[in-house]
Amino acid sequence: MAAMTRYQIELTPSCGCKLDIGWAYRLYAALLEQLSPEQAQQIHEAPVAPLGQHLRFEAGRWIWEIGLLGEQGEQFLRPVLEQTDVYSLKDGAIKLRAKILQQETIDSLENLLEISPAKGCQHELYFRTPTAFKSQGEYLNLPSAKLLLQSLVKKWNGNFPECQIEDTDGEGLVVMSHRLHFQVFSLKSQRFWLKGKAVTGFTGKIVLEDRNQGFHSELVNALLYFSQFSGIGIKTALGMGGVEYRR
Amino acid sequence: MAAMTRYQIELTPSCGCKLDIGWAYRLYAALLEQLSPEQAQQIHEAPVAPLGQHLRFEAGRWIWEIGLLGEQGEQFLRPVLEQTDVYSLKDGAIKLRAKILQQETIDSLENLLEISPAKGCQHELYFRTPTAFKSQGEYLNLPSAKLLLQSLVKKWNGNFPECQIEDTDGEGLVVMSHRLHFQVFSLKSQRFWLKGKAVTGFTGKIVLEDRNQGFHSELVNALLYFSQFSGIGIKTALGMGGVEYRR
Repeated sequence: MAAMTRYQIELTPSCGCKLDIGWAYRLYAALLEQLSPEQAQQIHEAPVAPLGQHLRFEAGRWIWEIGLLGEQGEQFLRPVLEQTDVYSLKDGAIKLRAKILQQETIDSLENLLEISPAKGCQHELYFRTPTAFKSQGEYLNLPSAKLLLQSLVKKWNGNFPECQIEDTDGEGLVVMSHRLHFQVFSLKSQRFWLKGKAVTGFTGKIVLEDRNQGFHSELVNALLYFSQFSGIGIKTALGMGGVEYRR
Repeated sequence: MAAMTRYQIELTPSCGCKLDIGWAYRLYAALLEQLSPEQAQQIHEAPVAPLGQHLRFEAGRWIWEIGLLGEQGEQFLRPVLEQTDVYSLKDGAIKLRAKILQQETIDSLENLLEISPAKGCQHELYFRTPTAFKSQGEYLNLPSAKLLLQSLVKKWNGNFPECQIEDTDGEGLVVMSHRLHFQVFSLKSQRFWLKGKAVTGFTGKIVLEDRNQGFHSELVNALLYFSQFSGIGIKTALGMGGVEYRR
């Protein structure tokens, strides 16, 4: 079962302290602390993390977006998210009150294919937190259609072993990316601080025009819709690559 | 002899007509009209154009930046540029008065290597007109370090057959690009109209940090300095890919 759920959660700090997008890493740690050591280890060591999450400041509030992917996400993390009213950071020095504002569950691949079709061939991606890629051992901090799709397929396949997107020779991805055009964009560099080290990514907007047809077009629709749950690129479980998607 | 010259020319239209960056294409045609048919054909059919040029509006003036590359640039185009006071566009309906504001000549590879070293490892590239790439049959309208260097090496090798940058297996380029980081950037899409068709490219700024050393670092310095003469990416002879370089 290809299930996934995403939550939009408002966080209110107990003290007057200032949050930062980099605190997403602390929230990740706070989440894992509430699991059994075995569950926490499984999630932390998963080759592809069963979650994507990021923090953003919007209209005077801190919003935590978190998507849970596949079995581990559903079984281990969902109960924690739905039962936790207060997250404790920095060994309890800071407490964040959590209020779920919205949630969306997709309970099967069929369900995703049903709701993901775009009205036209245009897709809008808003990269809300710094996004970067790793390809052939190299960090890349600007996107290409191929890097976007490659990252989403990897996150999909890593979390839904029972319904793999098969493309062993990579040819399908190449064809799909050639037909996915960056029509309008505005991107700028932004640093993400992770344990004292800066990773430079990009934030901003891309309007994609999809000239794929048939199955390829359906797959592009599904993958882009999925990006809201998974994030895009590297370190999406720790706060990078947070994406908003509009059609 | 690896000679190249670039000019900064102020253009003043005879009428009150409004120029546009797409008029660079008309200036290209006006230039070739002043050559013998054989010379014009040689330039027009060259696999890599012996010039890069673009138009930009700056502080209330239209500035034409044009770089001449190699033998054809020097022998055919230089005399035209230095002797023309008025360019005639649209079959003579529009006349542009031309005044050379600045020029810079580099007369040998040694000369280029002498003046190109950066003070630190930072390089600033300002993409003044829409820039795009073609790689493996695909249009790409966002850059990567590899696409930048690849384009410059191609323009270099196409115009200076007597001092080729040799990298038959492409390994040198891969190593150099891995060590050339996009540290700060701000890029947005912009369309370039060419004979009624729009090509989407990017404009904006990239601060590059070069972590190459020795010969590779010297080569990066030389290629980036060269970009002011050649432009970067596709259709640089027609007004796209116009670059300003600062160290």
